[in-house]
Amino acid sequence: MYEIKRLENGLENIDGFYFGGVNSGFKKEGNDLGFIRSSEPVDISSVFTSNKFQAAPIRHFLKKRQNFRTNFILLNSKNANAMTGEAGINDIDEIFKNLSKNINLVNPVMSSTGVIGYRLKKEKIISAFDKFDFDSRDSNGVVGAIMTTDSFKKEIAVSVKFDDKKEFKIAAICKGAGMINPSLATMLCFILTDANISKPDMDELLKEACESSFNAVSVDGDTSTNDTVMLLTSRKSGVYDKEAFKEALKLITKELALMLVKDGEGATKVVEFNISGALNLKEAEHAAKALSNSLLVKTAIFGEDPNWGRIASTIGASGVECDEDKLEIYYDDVLVYDKFHKELDEKRELAAHQVMKKPSYTISCNLNVGDAQFSAYGCDLGHKYVSINADYRS
Amino acid sequence: MYEIKRLENGLENIDGFYFGGVNSGFKKEGNDLGFIRSSEPVDISSVFTSNKFQAAPIRHFLKKRQNFRTNFILLNSKNANAMTGEAGINDIDEIFKNLSKNINLVNPVMSSTGVIGYRLKKEKIISAFDKFDFDSRDSNGVVGAIMTTDSFKKEIAVSVKFDDKKEFKIAAICKGAGMINPSLATMLCFILTDANISKPDMDELLKEACESSFNAVSVDGDTSTNDTVMLLTSRKSGVYDKEAFKEALKLITKELALMLVKDGEGATKVVEFNISGALNLKEAEHAAKALSNSLLVKTAIFGEDPNWGRIASTIGASGVECDEDKLEIYYDDVLVYDKFHKELDEKRELAAHQVMKKPSYTISCNLNVGDAQFSAYGCDLGHKYVSINADYRS
Repeated sequence: MYEIKRLENGLENIDGFYFGGVNSGFKKEGNDLGFIRSSEPVDISSVFTSNKFQAAPIRHFLKKRQNFRTNFILLNSKNANAMTGEAGINDIDEIFKNLSKNINLVNPVMSSTGVIGYRLKKEKIISAFDKFDFDSRDSNGVVGAIMTTDSFKKEIAVSVKFDDKKEFKIAAICKGAGMINPSLATMLCFILTDANISKPDMDELLKEACESSFNAVSVDGDTSTNDTVMLLTSRKSGVYDKEAFKEALKLITKELALMLVKDGEGATKVVEFNISGALNLKEAEHAAKALSNSLLVKTAIFGEDPNWGRIASTIGASGVECDEDKLEIYYDDVLVYDKFHKELDEKRELAAHQVMKKPSYTISCNLNVGDAQFSAYGCDLGHKYVSINADYRS
Repeated sequence: MYEIKRLENGLENIDGFYFGGVNSGFKKEGNDLGFIRSSEPVDISSVFTSNKFQAAPIRHFLKKRQNFRTNFILLNSKNANAMTGEAGINDIDEIFKNLSKNINLVNPVMSSTGVIGYRLKKEKIISAFDKFDFDSRDSNGVVGAIMTTDSFKKEIAVSVKFDDKKEFKIAAICKGAGMINPSLATMLCFILTDANISKPDMDELLKEACESSFNAVSVDGDTSTNDTVMLLTSRKSGVYDKEAFKEALKLITKELALMLVKDGEGATKVVEFNISGALNLKEAEHAAKALSNSLLVKTAIFGEDPNWGRIASTIGASGVECDEDKLEIYYDDVLVYDKFHKELDEKRELAAHQVMKKPSYTISCNLNVGDAQFSAYGCDLGHKYVSINADYRS
C-alpha cells in the first residue's frame, strides 16, 4: 500500500538539485534562459519527439553514449535551434565550453523551444552565464525560462509514502500550449525525483507514463521538432517502490498533460474523447485521436452544437472497425446516438446542449465490437485560436 | 491527336439525358430535390466514400447486382439519410415505389447530402414528384437541388474532337464546400457523356481521374458518409478514343476539385502543396496532404506569414523519409529554406510575404530523397471558417 500526496511548490521539494533562470535579452521581460543541475552526476531517462527533423539539442543528446550521467541541463526559449544542421549542434558544444568556465560540467544537456530555422545567438547566451546563481532553488524561475505562449506556469509535486514510514518525492515542470492542434506545439517536461529508482525502471516507467498522458493529448506521430520529456533522479531518499512510483508518475504526467490542453491557444473547453468497445487498443487510440484532432468536431464544441453526426462521420472516416447498428454516442451521460437509430428528440438535444455549455465534459463512443478502450483529450477551436496562430511565429 | 474544348452551359450538352430540380419544401428557397434520367437504361460507374458509415443511398446502390443499368438518379439535399440503418434503405425503396407511378424506373439510384442521423421525410418528397418536368434539360436546376453551403454553382462541359471529324462530349455537375477540412464535407459529382465508351473503361478511367483530382483535395481515407462520383454514358455520339477521354475526364475532375477548394467555407486563398523528390508516390501524397490539412499551416497562410518552420515541422512529423540537409522549400519561386541552412534574410522574407499576399500560389518542397511527386490542394483557415462551422449543422 502507498499514499500519494500533493505538495506545495515545485522542484524545491527534491533534494540534490539546483535550478533557476535569468533574462538573457531574448524576451523583453521574464526569464528566457534557465538551468537544472545536480550536486553530482545523475541518471537521466528521456522521451523525444518522433519528428524526423529532430532539433539540434536532441541530436546533441543522442550523440552521447547510452546511459550517460549528467549534472547539468541548460534550457532556453525564443529559439528552437531546429533545422540548423551540424552547425546547430556545434553551437551547443561551444556554449558548454564557455559555461564550463563558470561551473564543472559532466555530459551537459540542452533543451530549446522557440522559432525554427535560426542559429542560436551564442554570445548573448554566453554573456548571461555570469548572471546564473548556481546555488538557487527557484522552480518558478526555471519554468519561466521555457514558457512561450503558455498563459500559466505548469508545475506539480507529490510525496509518495509506503511501508508506513518510507517516503520519496517527485516534482515536475512543463511548458506547452497550442494543443488545439498538438502537431506543432513544442512540449518540454522535466521531472526530478529523489527515489532510489534503477535506470531500467526509469526508462520503462517514463515511457509508459508518457503513453497515457502526453501522448493522449497529441496526434499519432505528430510532434514538434523539439518535444522532450526528461526524468532525473538524485536517489537522495534512498527508498523506492515500483508500483507506487509508477502510479505517482502517471498521475503527474496526466495532470501536466491536461494543463497543456487547458492552456490550448485560445481554448475555452477541454473535452475527453473516450472510445470504448474497440477491436484493439491501437484502433481505440486512433479513433479517439481522430476525434480530438477533427476541425469540424472542434468547431462544433466551440459552437456548443450537439452535432453528433460529425462525431460519427469522423469515426467512420478513421477506418477503425465499426458498425452503425452497434455504435453508441454519449455527451457525458446523455445518449445522443443509439444503435437503434432513434432520432435525437428535443429533450435529449437540450440535455446534450447543456452538457456542451460546461467548460469540461466527456464525449464517449462505444463501438461495441471489442473490449479495448482509450481516452484522448482535446479542446475547442474558436476565433482566438485563429488570431493567435495567424500572427504568432513559433 | 485530339482537341479538348470548353463548352458553354453544363449537362445540356449531352444528348440522351434529362434533368431538373424542384423545391419540395426542405429549403426555404431554391431547389432541394432533383433528378437525372436517361431516355433508355445506361451504364453507370461510381466511386464512393471510404467512410465505414456509408449512407443509406450508397448502401442501396451497392445492394444491386454488379454492372446494372439505370435510367434514373434522384438527388436531394438537407438530409444525408446517413446513420439511419436498414430503415433508411427501405425508405429509398418506398420513395421509388411511389415515383414509379409517375415514370418508368429501371434500377433507380438515389444520392443525398445534408444532416446526418434523421430519416427522410418521405411524404414531402413523394408529394413533390408531381412538380417534376421529366422532359426538362435544366442543368442549373439540378445543381441547385444538391447545393448546401456552396456559394456558387459548379458545372463544366467539354467537347473532345479526334480523327478530324469525330466528336464526343462530357459534362459534369458537382457540389461541395468546406474543403478547409475535407474530412466531413460531402462531395457529390455527376458526370454525363455521349462517348461510346465501354463499361470497363468507364470504371478504370473514373477511378484514375478521381485519384489526382477529388482525392488530392481530400485527406487519406477521410471522406464523408455520402461522398459520391458517378459517370453515365448515353453513347449517342457513337465514337470514343481512350486517350482523349482519359485526358478530358482528368481535366474536368481536376477543375471541379479546384472549384471545391476555392469554395472552401470561409476560404480566401487556394494553395497548391507540391511535394517532389519523395521516396515513392505514397510518401509524396502523404506529405502533401499533411501540409494541406495542417491547422498551423492553414492559419499561417491566412496570416500571410512566411513561417516555413511550420512547413518543415509538418513534413518531419508526417513520418516520410526526409533529411534537413536535403530539403528545399519554396513559396512560388522564392527559396525560403535550403539544405545549407542559410537563414531567411529580410529580402527573401519580404519576397515570400509578397507571394503569400496572392489569392493563389504554390508551396513546393523538394525532399531530394527520390523521384516521386504529388500535389495536394488546400486553403487557408480564418475567422469566417470558425463562424460558419460553429453554427452550421451539416
